[in-house]
Amino acid sequence: MDRVSNEAHVRKMFGKASFIRELGMELTGVGDGWCETALVPEAQHRQQHGFAHAAVVTALADHTAGCAAGTALGPGQDVITVEIKVSFLRPAAAPRLLARGKVLRAGKNLIFAESEVFGVEDGAEKMIAKALATLAVITNERIEGHRPEGG
Amino acid sequence: MDRVSNEAHVRKMFGKASFIRELGMELTGVGDGWCETALVPEAQHRQQHGFAHAAVVTALADHTAGCAAGTALGPGQDVITVEIKVSFLRPAAAPRLLARGKVLRAGKNLIFAESEVFGVEDGAEKMIAKALATLAVITNERIEGHRPEGG
Amino acid sequence: MDRVSNEAHVRKMFGKASFIRELGMELTGVGDGWCETALVPEAQHRQQHGFAHAAVVTALADHTAGCAAGTALGPGQDVITVEIKVSFLRPAAAPRLLARGKVLRAGKNLIFAESEVFGVEDGAEKMIAKALATLAVITNERIEGHRPEGG
Amino acid sequence: MDRVSNEAHVRKMFGKASFIRELGMELTGVGDGWCETALVPEAQHRQQHGFAHAAVVTALADHTAGCAAGTALGPGQDVITVEIKVSFLRPAAAPRLLARGKVLRAGKNLIFAESEVFGVEDGAEKMIAKALATLAVITNERIEGHRPEGG
Repeated sequence: MDRVSNEAHVRKMFGKASFIRELGMELTGVGDGWCETALVPEAQHRQQHGFAHAAVVTALADHTAGCAAGTALGPGQDVITVEIKVSFLRPAAAPRLLARGKVLRAGKNLIFAESEVFGVEDGAEKMIAKALATLAVITNERIEGHRPEGG
Repeated sequence: MDRVSNEAHVRKMFGKASFIRELGMELTGVGDGWCETALVPEAQHRQQHGFAHAAVVTALADHTAGCAAGTALGPGQDVITVEIKVSFLRPAAAPRLLARGKVLRAGKNLIFAESEVFGVEDGAEKMIAKALATLAVITNERIEGHRPEGG
Repeated sequence: MDRVSNEAHVRKMFGKASFIRELGMELTGVGDGWCETALVPEAQHRQQHGFAHAAVVTALADHTAGCAAGTALGPGQDVITVEIKVSFLRPAAAPRLLARGKVLRAGKNLIFAESEVFGVEDGAEKMIAKALATLAVITNERIEGHRPEGG
Repeated sequence: MDRVSNEAHVRKMFGKASFIRELGMELTGVGDGWCETALVPEAQHRQQHGFAHAAVVTALADHTAGCAAGTALGPGQDVITVEIKVSFLRPAAAPRLLARGKVLRAGKNLIFAESEVFGVEDGAEKMIAKALATLAVITNERIEGHRPEGG
């Protein structure tokens, strides 16, 4: 796909993923091999100590890596996460979270991507998490066959 | 802590984590070194292909591993996830998800735990994800100092 | 492949991997979806504190997971490690190390496997590491194309 | 420690780790929060397809991340790897391997580091692996207590 189609594809990855939409994650930038997203943590994102839950940070890290990978596809292709590893460097205490994903290598069947999540406070960014993920390239037909509710 | 206190602690980890509560994750069992949780995926948990989002599966895997670790603490201690790695074996297409967490080793400062997430359909379980996590043992005082809104 | 061919294949994976042979790793058991190996740590396996180096433990964990995956192949197929995550639960101080690998899911293109490494001392086993790996199924023709020295 | 002591410490991490020395890994650069190493793969480093074994690449990735972490210590402190995740982006087919490690965050008890391994051929570098690791800061006294042969 050309750049325009890939950006459109990534926007669709956002629009169609209800979990991501409900979470309040927002797409702030996308280009060849990279993607940037943001989230303003609210009360419902908290774990027991009052920080954004590790799973919220992981959602950001995972979806942003996936969207970066989504810019490296051919027509009719999509990506699913095979596995992800997230290191939580600092508590997610900042009022705004920012994630940047980057493709490390796009193979025919597998795409390796990484993402970094930052807390943004008073204009300064601090890395709060770093993730390394493997994504599988799949064709849309194969996805249809797996879809639970047929659409 | 004795067994009763640890189970009470894990129940508190559920009650106070608003993200987990909103997600609909439910504690179905807990004991020395283990924990079991369940989730019924709804429309809001989906990614773009109609399955439960990888981040929902990760939330289950992470919180269940964390709760297993929570059964291995002393008084005034708590756990935070240092890092987690999740492998997504199959799409999360089943109408019910079940997660089992287990402590692999509880050290003084670090606890290693694993968790397995199963899709349950027609009474049969299929493993859809496996996670390996490292958790840090922290004292409640240290948490207070980091808490964003002081409570 | 049938069981006999798969066991033969795994034995070949040992015989042809010079790094594994030089390391002194030995195949102690293999069957459908699993593999067991052993290593007696020597002076040359040590890191700066006198324990077996994390990379030696990782070699055991990786090769044993790979051999378990090697029992789940069709004719003319082989596996390569896509990624591995190893948690080091305890120092590798025991006089004998034992590793057990197990296939978690064997897909058409990817195989998920885990392995556990134990220190064996006075007849007792203690888990010193646990690994989670993703392996790609490749065909022998594709390997030939990548081989550096053509044989 | 000041910079000079930390560089000396990292050189000692190389000199005392017999596995690393035997492997042929060489320290090519070290500074505040980073480390660079190199390895020329030989016949004994190969896996069954003729490439450098994943465990050799992991040894490079792990030891280089560890040495980067080693530059962020206080007097009498050392690091051990708690866990590492390595993604193998390409076969290790190049005649020379280069690894660069970097500290992502140095906490009081835990250090997060990453490392990238490159194949170098005809002056060009290609990333063949990327790793994310967690290291624990330990004091030398604690190490003595664990050392198998008391020295």
